[in-house]
Formats: sequence, C-alpha cells, structure tokens
Amino acid sequence: MNWIHYIGILAGTLTTLAFVPQVIRVWRLKSAKDLSIWWLIIFCTGVSTWLIYGFMINDLPVILANAATIFLLILIIIAKIIYQKN
Amino acid sequence: MNWIHYIGILAGTLTTLAFVPQVIRVWRLKSAKDLSIWWLIIFCTGVSTWLIYGFMINDLPVILANAATIFLLILIIIAKIIYQKN
Repeated sequence: MNWIHYIGILAGTLTTLAFVPQVIRVWRLKSAKDLSIWWLIIFCTGVSTWLIYGFMINDLPVILANAATIFLLILIIIAKIIYQKN
Repeated sequence: MNWIHYIGILAGTLTTLAFVPQVIRVWRLKSAKDLSIWWLIIFCTGVSTWLIYGFMINDLPVILANAATIFLLILIIIAKIIYQKN
C-alpha cells in the first residue's frame, strides 16, 4: 500500500464523515424539505452500488466507507419521511 | 476492463447524477437552509481529494465523475450563500 492509496482513504473518509453534520442538521431543524428525495434515492442507490463493487474487489476501506454512508443516508431519509409536509 | 469495472462506472455515474435533482431543488425553492454548510464543505473537500486521487492513478472515469460532482456542488453552495437567511 503506497501513499496514493492513503489519498484514496482520506477522500473516502471525508465524503463519508461529511454526512454526520447533515444528519444532525435535519434532525435538529426537524426539516428536510430542501433535500431532494430524488437526490436521496439516486445517491443511496449509487452508494449501494459502490458497496457491491467494494465486495467484488474485496476492498475493506471501500466496503466500510460506503456501508457507513448508507447508514447515515438512511437516517436522513427517515427524517425526510417523518418531517415531510410538502 | 472487465464487468466489475462497469459496476464501478455505474456507481460513479449514479452518485454524480444524483446531484442534478438536488441542484434543481435548491434553485427552484430558493432555499438551502436544510443543507448543512459543513456537509457541503467537507463533502466538497472529499470529492476534490477523489479528483486528485483520480489524476494520481490516471483514471478518466474517476476524474470525470468527481469533476462533474464538484461543478454541481458549487451550484448548490452558491444557492446556499445567496438564499442564506439563518
């Protein structure tokens, strides 16, 4: 594993951790109206495809990053459904 | 390039295209208050790191997907700044 690999791990960590403040925001505001349901559905499908890809290439960082992102996305989708008014 | 590679390209296409309805939503609603600025900043930093990674491994699909995502994220960040009230 060379240093380029670590750049990939840093990138995956950032794009996964980024969803933590977003989860906190929608649950604290009790609002997710500005979030497109199509963004959530297509993005979640895409991240799930990344997860399948991770299993196929047997790459633990890809598996862990995408599994964590799916978990955080589900928390946002639940907030979107609960607080949906429009 | 085997079929596993195509799964990766499908995943990248989905996680990039997903941002199109999100861009449309914030500009149509003229509101992005439910979007965490920290999510936008950390996610944009992460996707930029993926772009650097793509150049390092010289992988065109990784470069194109992340460059397109950064463009769409910038449109969301501009909306967030323009329509910021809270």
